[in-house]
Amino acid sequence: MDLTLIGQRARAAGRALGLISTERKNAALEAIASALLDHAEDVLAANARDMQAGRAAGTADALLDRMLLTRPRLEAIAADVRNVARLPDPVGQHYDVSVLPNGLKAHKRRVPFGVIGVIYEARPNVTVDCAALCLKSGNAAILRGGKEIGFSCAALVTVIQHALAASGLPADAIQVIDDPDRALVEQLLRLDRYVDVIIPRGGAALHQFCREKATIPVITGGIGVCHVYVDQDANLDYVVPIVRNAKVQRPSVCNALDTLLVHRAVAALVLPPVATDLLRHSVELRCDEAALALLHESGIEQATLARPSDFGTEFMALILSIRVVDDLDQALDHIAQHGDHSDAIITENQAVADQFVAAVDSAAVFVNASTRFNDGGQLGLGAEIAVSTQKLHARGPMALYELTTYKYVVEGAGHVRA
Amino acid sequence: MDLTLIGQRARAAGRALGLISTERKNAALEAIASALLDHAEDVLAANARDMQAGRAAGTADALLDRMLLTRPRLEAIAADVRNVARLPDPVGQHYDVSVLPNGLKAHKRRVPFGVIGVIYEARPNVTVDCAALCLKSGNAAILRGGKEIGFSCAALVTVIQHALAASGLPADAIQVIDDPDRALVEQLLRLDRYVDVIIPRGGAALHQFCREKATIPVITGGIGVCHVYVDQDANLDYVVPIVRNAKVQRPSVCNALDTLLVHRAVAALVLPPVATDLLRHSVELRCDEAALALLHESGIEQATLARPSDFGTEFMALILSIRVVDDLDQALDHIAQHGDHSDAIITENQAVADQFVAAVDSAAVFVNASTRFNDGGQLGLGAEIAVSTQKLHARGPMALYELTTYKYVVEGAGHVRA
Repeated sequence: MDLTLIGQRARAAGRALGLISTERKNAALEAIASALLDHAEDVLAANARDMQAGRAAGTADALLDRMLLTRPRLEAIAADVRNVARLPDPVGQHYDVSVLPNGLKAHKRRVPFGVIGVIYEARPNVTVDCAALCLKSGNAAILRGGKEIGFSCAALVTVIQHALAASGLPADAIQVIDDPDRALVEQLLRLDRYVDVIIPRGGAALHQFCREKATIPVITGGIGVCHVYVDQDANLDYVVPIVRNAKVQRPSVCNALDTLLVHRAVAALVLPPVATDLLRHSVELRCDEAALALLHESGIEQATLARPSDFGTEFMALILSIRVVDDLDQALDHIAQHGDHSDAIITENQAVADQFVAAVDSAAVFVNASTRFNDGGQLGLGAEIAVSTQKLHARGPMALYELTTYKYVVEGAGHVRA
Repeated sequence: MDLTLIGQRARAAGRALGLISTERKNAALEAIASALLDHAEDVLAANARDMQAGRAAGTADALLDRMLLTRPRLEAIAADVRNVARLPDPVGQHYDVSVLPNGLKAHKRRVPFGVIGVIYEARPNVTVDCAALCLKSGNAAILRGGKEIGFSCAALVTVIQHALAASGLPADAIQVIDDPDRALVEQLLRLDRYVDVIIPRGGAALHQFCREKATIPVITGGIGVCHVYVDQDANLDYVVPIVRNAKVQRPSVCNALDTLLVHRAVAALVLPPVATDLLRHSVELRCDEAALALLHESGIEQATLARPSDFGTEFMALILSIRVVDDLDQALDHIAQHGDHSDAIITENQAVADQFVAAVDSAAVFVNASTRFNDGGQLGLGAEIAVSTQKLHARGPMALYELTTYKYVVEGAGHVRA
């Protein structure tokens, strides 16, 4: 495969796409949604080949389930594409409009990045999600899914490209690297002449690999240790529901709770009911000495002593580390050391809440709410391509707006600089 | 030198700095400005050592002049610091405020990056400029100036650190890597645990080196090929002044003109007066065949035939390449291939201007104005730490606002995700 050619095509398609009206982009998205269902048989046949290879390779059931496409799943994917068509288009917005003292008129205009590279794992739905969000935001995309779903990705992109062409949009706006050669990922990460930003979607190793190898800006995220701090002035009625929701509702995602911090003054009140509830939900509890002692005093024996590494670990599983802290400062120091994704405080004390919000340097900070709300859909963005934990450009959920940049537009009447 | 220790200190200082009021930051900046003048003798003595070494090494006069500090130059540097103190503080701004359907209150809050690494060449004033902008925007900074100005940088940062400490701010907020070992630059570029963004200030080689080696997001910029396109509907009175200003006023900077594109329909009218004017200002003209023929017909013999590489070259000198184009599309294709920094059109045709502005994908696009306005001071930002040509986070001039990011703040009343 020649990535230079793919890059050139993507750049040309991106140039064209940036000038296409919202209406035409939406029509193309509707056409893609329909085509996915019209060509469901082809897509499901390709997916069956991936599934067969996956089963033959002894792939774990959980991963096989993520790889699987079914007719209902394709219907859900198509519905998501139609949802993206309905979202407002950020491209073309004017802002920071000013008239400078010399009479020059300046504004910033929101424009697509141009070309986005997306590297993801064995989830075929990501192919379509990313294609839809990139198209709506006026970007061409070069997609590289996990090699386990190579046939599925190729089939999905073929459907998308035909729908684009039928809609009069450049088919090269969405391209896939379906050659499993891993060296191509490194090539993609260095295609800085043609690709403006790389979005990895996967585990820590993928993000690290992209950071190491890329000469293109990388949006890292979707990974992080999340904390809930129960302050001495917490409304105790909030604690069990928030901790349960943050830990149990979907433990395998990045905004799930990893570490519970409890103020010493309320630890004896808070920890037994929290532990009882979590144990009922099969959560393994790894406690510092103070927390463990309190649980043992309450007759709760199932908790274990945490190792130091249990703090600062993203578990992605029904495991929670628990620490008793002396005060807000100790909680803040702990979060400063380990957090950057989603951190919450439970308190009725506004001054303490304000201090926590000001001091915690994470993508999203919550007061009296579950960390699970750090999500594009939940925060009203309508969709999400990634949850950024780096600080450049965007933090937290990224959707259409976050897939755009701006340019300065300056209009004069023969103005020259003095 | 132990960069890990420097990184840890910077991170701690950044945490503190992010919570310090605008008033206290401004007071510290005033203290730094005063201290620079109070300790001018120490700084000038250190600079004299750099200058002596530079002269002994046979450094070029232009570079020696950039390295030189004098009392008037220190006064100008101190005045720039006081100017930064007077600029509005972006930190703490709330925006995108919303109440979600479930009653959660969400907003974005503008916060410092945390720690900024700045790598620059042999210009001691950059040390103070960057320190002031980072401090005002609540960021700690790790500075690495060119090895030619090691003594100057160390002396300036000593003065800054004392002034910070005397103002009750963490002295570690501004640190310098004054060990000339180049391996330390590579270490800094990989200090992703402690540094949030790298801003290189220098030539193309430095930017490329940073892109290659960094595991931290890099803001590249300050480099680019700038174009002026003279449309067939240009106001011809604008052409000579804009081209002269863009090319001649300060040819060594990144927003200076490199390539003039002229619509064929007006080339015979436009090129002779432009060439005559530029030749009077000692500009070397490198023309495509059509442009050269027109100049020769007008009796202008000093121009030469351009080589292909003269298009797409940032000259940083009194050299201009000139091409005659058939139409707007050819101009747009040319700019798409070579431009990304500052590009201008001269036209009275609003539809053509709109097409040009929409299609040119550069950091700043100008209509009937000189490219030299792509500058923080000129565009009303009050200062500038860099001119970005990458698309993530900020494009064009970057000042205080662009040295900040945001976090989501979400406030509930025991909210959990359904």
